[in-house]
Amino acid sequence: MTFETVSTTKSFGGVQGVYRHASGETGTPMTFSVFLPPQAEAGAPLPVVWYLSGLTCTHANVTEKGEFRKACAELGLIFVAPDTSPRGEGVPDDAEAAYDFGLGAGFYVDATQAPFAENYRMYSYITGELPALIQAHFPADMGRQAIMGHSMGGHGALTIALKNPDRFRSVSAFAPIVSPMRCPWGHKALGGYLGRDQAAWRAHDATALIEDGARVKEILVDQGGADNFLESQLKPELLQAACEAAGLPLTLRLQPGYDHSYYFISSFMDDHLRWHAERLA
Amino acid sequence: MTFETVSTTKSFGGVQGVYRHASGETGTPMTFSVFLPPQAEAGAPLPVVWYLSGLTCTHANVTEKGEFRKACAELGLIFVAPDTSPRGEGVPDDAEAAYDFGLGAGFYVDATQAPFAENYRMYSYITGELPALIQAHFPADMGRQAIMGHSMGGHGALTIALKNPDRFRSVSAFAPIVSPMRCPWGHKALGGYLGRDQAAWRAHDATALIEDGARVKEILVDQGGADNFLESQLKPELLQAACEAAGLPLTLRLQPGYDHSYYFISSFMDDHLRWHAERLA
Repeated sequence: MTFETVSTTKSFGGVQGVYRHASGETGTPMTFSVFLPPQAEAGAPLPVVWYLSGLTCTHANVTEKGEFRKACAELGLIFVAPDTSPRGEGVPDDAEAAYDFGLGAGFYVDATQAPFAENYRMYSYITGELPALIQAHFPADMGRQAIMGHSMGGHGALTIALKNPDRFRSVSAFAPIVSPMRCPWGHKALGGYLGRDQAAWRAHDATALIEDGARVKEILVDQGGADNFLESQLKPELLQAACEAAGLPLTLRLQPGYDHSYYFISSFMDDHLRWHAERLA
Repeated sequence: MTFETVSTTKSFGGVQGVYRHASGETGTPMTFSVFLPPQAEAGAPLPVVWYLSGLTCTHANVTEKGEFRKACAELGLIFVAPDTSPRGEGVPDDAEAAYDFGLGAGFYVDATQAPFAENYRMYSYITGELPALIQAHFPADMGRQAIMGHSMGGHGALTIALKNPDRFRSVSAFAPIVSPMRCPWGHKALGGYLGRDQAAWRAHDATALIEDGARVKEILVDQGGADNFLESQLKPELLQAACEAAGLPLTLRLQPGYDHSYYFISSFMDDHLRWHAERLA
């Protein structure tokens, strides 16, 4: 297996595909999904939206429940949804198989600590290996890319955009972890993958990256007001303060009554995709 | 437990709820979902769309993957998704626990055969007990009801509408079983629930009902052209012939390339809901 098609299903006039390949970065098979809108049939390269998922998710959660296909079909967007960690026999997991570290919780970093360093290379996978595959196998215009994500994937989208400002024309997030250095999920993950020296953490913390001078043109964030993780883990006020201090335009919308689930994400998916499409035009 | 709320989650400005109650018809707890659009807050009664699911499904499949909330929120439609059979300890199942009979496969009939007759009363549940609960607990205008369904649930929607023409203003289906008397799924189910006398089957077969004089104003059906069950089980041409002979307006759309999954259903959900909303106005 170098690259294989798991399934392709017609939907909204386009094709929802699931693919698998042997990843050199993670040393494991990796699965991801790609929606090709109907415009792909005409052959001209189309803009790409990356969607990074949150803790416990695979590519399947957003693929089944994200309600992105209708807007992507209308707007002509390719939608790519990777997995959130390496998986399989021999891949080290959290010592107690907790949901917030190890499998399903790669945090979009390249681990430096044993025993995780060998497989947990999600930063290089998402920014290097997978884009090359997308370019090789799909009619993707890699000059027009956007990135978005949810929760841990919101952290991934923000940090990856801030570290690659010339690659992504736009970045948005649903209920992102904005500062893993300053929340329990992040402490556990960055400590486990990157070690105790918090200086190394700053390169994977959106607010710290902004404080240290990283910039994107603007950021869009939706955050549910009834999200159980809002105060303990997500803390959008930290991103707001960093953006204000840096003069970085942030549209932060608190959506009253919404929780942390796909019932929230799907409600605002269309709006985010339209926002990205304007910037990818 | 007479009626309890399992969960309520804000979505698309409305509320996606899941509810459970002790059913007198089935003698079991029954779970269903209701989406209340944002217009429900204003208090005026709103039209109701019933969605009947297919083999193996519970309320959860369409609730998670049906992509109906955006249109319901825009159009002001209450969306009700029941389960497809009784479930629980002591409920008889298929002898070999096959997917196409027993649990998850009630076929929307009242069984007359032992050991199914006691619990498998899905026709009376869907047409009597559950509507009374909906009327009692939700701001539903029971004078404006529509019904739709998928596969076995398309069979349910068509037969229930044909048997209750004054109750439903409109009926549509995705990939329905149009004549259970003339397909293997239906033979097994109607034989098991209703016995060997096929005269009793005609009251639960959409094409036979039409042949025997039952009428609705019109029917909308979408059918995927790449549906694995098209030729062996679904046979929309039988419905077409019955409608033509009866002068019953049928819009039957063969959608090339689409399969039997929610990737197909969700692609045309919006269109069906708009069609119903016009007739519920």
